[in-house]
Amino acid sequence: MLKDHHIPKATAKRLPLYYRYLRILNNAGKQKVSSTELSEAVQVDSATIRRDFSYFGELGKRGYGYDVEALMNFFAKTLNEDHMTNVALVGVGNLGTALLKYKFHQSNSIRVSAAFDADEEITGRIIDGVPVYAMADMVEQIKIQEIDIAILTVPAEFAQGIVDELVAAGIKGILNFTPARLSAPKSVLIQNVDLTNELQTLIYFLHSQEGK
Amino acid sequence: MLKDHHIPKATAKRLPLYYRYLRILNNAGKQKVSSTELSEAVQVDSATIRRDFSYFGELGKRGYGYDVEALMNFFAKTLNEDHMTNVALVGVGNLGTALLKYKFHQSNSIRVSAAFDADEEITGRIIDGVPVYAMADMVEQIKIQEIDIAILTVPAEFAQGIVDELVAAGIKGILNFTPARLSAPKSVLIQNVDLTNELQTLIYFLHSQEGK
Repeated sequence: MLKDHHIPKATAKRLPLYYRYLRILNNAGKQKVSSTELSEAVQVDSATIRRDFSYFGELGKRGYGYDVEALMNFFAKTLNEDHMTNVALVGVGNLGTALLKYKFHQSNSIRVSAAFDADEEITGRIIDGVPVYAMADMVEQIKIQEIDIAILTVPAEFAQGIVDELVAAGIKGILNFTPARLSAPKSVLIQNVDLTNELQTLIYFLHSQEGK
Repeated sequence: MLKDHHIPKATAKRLPLYYRYLRILNNAGKQKVSSTELSEAVQVDSATIRRDFSYFGELGKRGYGYDVEALMNFFAKTLNEDHMTNVALVGVGNLGTALLKYKFHQSNSIRVSAAFDADEEITGRIIDGVPVYAMADMVEQIKIQEIDIAILTVPAEFAQGIVDELVAAGIKGILNFTPARLSAPKSVLIQNVDLTNELQTLIYFLHSQEGK
């Protein structure tokens, strides 16, 4: 489907943004959108948008704007929005619980279908529709449910051991909320979301800006 | 202090990572670290590490490795670790509560000192040592406490209105967990952490890899 599998990560990260905005426009009954309007709504400059879109071939005609529905459907397909993805969540602490209750807004195609925790007080419960299993059941459940993506919200010291199990169970992608830097085979994608880093980076930029 | 204020964002995002690992090494009593060891520990290739470090001038001698303590102190200073940063959190829902309880691990210099919420059931409470104020007190508290960074975890439809108030109160940086794309004066830094995007991007890469 894609013209090129090797699109830059920064571009890939903006695709859900474009998709979300196009859905809003489509729901509002809008048929055309100019690159300027798109740029203002998603807060990405129009040169970047044009470059992003260019990786996918000809998506619109210069000067005519983009067809909202066609573009929305294209991104839906690109983002696998037409295909339900089951996700596992490992570690039902404060952040894990918040993520179970988090609606992964604007996506109808992502569903956390199983959660796992070591705490017997929590296992066996159903939180926001998601059953919480014991760690001992993790490998089996992931195989049965054919889950290939896991969200990791365990204490850092347990992270690598659990990743090894997840990989053995067939997990292909991990969204890592722990500060641990994980190692896994090259075929497994690890995306790190380090909240302390995000805050420290923001503080760093703030102070380096003040220094100017 | 910095050789150049305009270091790339990707480099800035890796600084907390380097710093954290150097602290671990220093605590373990290690005095020297090679770029290969550093590379393996933080999972960043050594060419990237050398390029990142080059923005800050000469940090080590080729072939001799880096002095752990000196490098750690350098990054501590660069990251303002020697200076306590007070942060406000706006929106004490599931995610907001999890972030209040989140220790922003490995950073002794970030403290969430005030939280705000519209729900009278929550305001007046102290959650994990952080007082939760009413929204009506937000501007005043931010000014009194000289807070310049805010974490935003409110429902998307309220985000922009609150950002306008935060900017008026003197906030200079916002860590935005809402899916809303915020507008603010150029002097205000907005860092978006969109959890749905993170997951969609991971799914996207996974499927585009399978297609190869």
